[in-house]
Amino acid sequence: MKAKLRVIKIGSNVIDDPKLLDTFLADFAQIKEQKILVHGGGKRATLLSKQLGIQPQLVDGRRITSSSDLEIVTMVYAGLINKSITAKLQSLGSNAMGLSGADGNTITAVKRPIDQIDFGWVGDITAVNSKAIQGLLEQNITPVFCALTHDGKGQLLNTNADTIAAEIAIAMSNNFDTELIYCFEKNGVLSDIDDDNSVITKIDTSRYSELKQKNIIHEGMLPKLENSFHALNEGVSKVIVGSISSLNDNNTHTTLSL
Amino acid sequence: MKAKLRVIKIGSNVIDDPKLLDTFLADFAQIKEQKILVHGGGKRATLLSKQLGIQPQLVDGRRITSSSDLEIVTMVYAGLINKSITAKLQSLGSNAMGLSGADGNTITAVKRPIDQIDFGWVGDITAVNSKAIQGLLEQNITPVFCALTHDGKGQLLNTNADTIAAEIAIAMSNNFDTELIYCFEKNGVLSDIDDDNSVITKIDTSRYSELKQKNIIHEGMLPKLENSFHALNEGVSKVIVGSISSLNDNNTHTTLSL
Repeated sequence: MKAKLRVIKIGSNVIDDPKLLDTFLADFAQIKEQKILVHGGGKRATLLSKQLGIQPQLVDGRRITSSSDLEIVTMVYAGLINKSITAKLQSLGSNAMGLSGADGNTITAVKRPIDQIDFGWVGDITAVNSKAIQGLLEQNITPVFCALTHDGKGQLLNTNADTIAAEIAIAMSNNFDTELIYCFEKNGVLSDIDDDNSVITKIDTSRYSELKQKNIIHEGMLPKLENSFHALNEGVSKVIVGSISSLNDNNTHTTLSL
Repeated sequence: MKAKLRVIKIGSNVIDDPKLLDTFLADFAQIKEQKILVHGGGKRATLLSKQLGIQPQLVDGRRITSSSDLEIVTMVYAGLINKSITAKLQSLGSNAMGLSGADGNTITAVKRPIDQIDFGWVGDITAVNSKAIQGLLEQNITPVFCALTHDGKGQLLNTNADTIAAEIAIAMSNNFDTELIYCFEKNGVLSDIDDDNSVITKIDTSRYSELKQKNIIHEGMLPKLENSFHALNEGVSKVIVGSISSLNDNNTHTTLSL
């Protein structure tokens, strides 16, 4: 039987709220099984941009990662947030190690090809080095990944944290019974975005098609669900979408399955 | 016979010069033996402070690490510089992994006790986790340490990179034949600070006493030499002080011995 592994991604609103983050990290440290944490950046990168007078570049409403933006997210994601979380987890008895995809060559990506839009230094993942990550887990290390990868040619790349979590979960599922958990500020996938009690507790492939067809799911949630079903199709055992208390199985959340 | 290990620290002026840094990293990647890189911050942290309008706090001419300063060095050392070096080394075929002392609980420290001066969030090293570092080396990982440690209670601490290099070298010398190399902008320890050709090629304990007595060594070099002789006394096989080309044994540099 494969050992259990939980890959847990925390959203920006958890990172931005020190109290919520502390609560989450205390619960995370309690998890007995092997585990991996993935985080993005939160508002801190935007704040630093503003302080430095760097205007975000938007094309068709989508954010571009310029060289300055890449420096900022490298400082905030891999530096400030990643090391703060790591030090905190160490104090909670979890042997955390903060990583970008460049560290130990754990996640490689390519700069997103220029089609209509040049997204700048944004990466699309090409490989997760599951052997390297497993090597760390075997040394009782809890990897904490920030939303950065590299192209193997010396270039760091800004990479979506939801996608990183899904791709890590998929790569690790060859050797582990892998569960992917998206923790964010809502209680789960909602049928009414304004009603936090409208959690859809179970979504399988056919129900997902139906919900999409009827436009019930909020647009912002769709990429996360696409990542989730992709992960399930590629060998991940279970995907959960919910609040930070979703680590506790008895709490309300959305469970996704094929 | 113990395996060889080189612990190499690069100075700020190497980090601040992209061409010099590239040359150094290319040489570093070529080293066949096991190796560890240690770096500080360079002028980038000072630049970011200025951009953010944060004035360095000085007491008796010595720099204090305030909470804002700690955030800045965490962003610059552990984020920008550490990840840029790591990605670059990966592109050169060296399986680098960027770390602070919090990562994998590799280096613990205590906040420097307040005597005459409160240095703020500055750490004095209490332990180097040689077992954890050896575990990484055994997985063919080249650790790249930035100048940050943690206190095990969730607090990151700004820590002198020369001292980090010496303490790592000492801790690893139980199981490795360890060489400590300080690479900086000069060719070695100079008898005349203004003459780069005045390298003192060999310094042993008695010569060191003599040089100190005669005030021949520049004041700024003394802490590095104190670290060096401490390392030699604690089991490090050899200490070299020199320019980035000191990695090449045939080049001029200073060799320290007991």
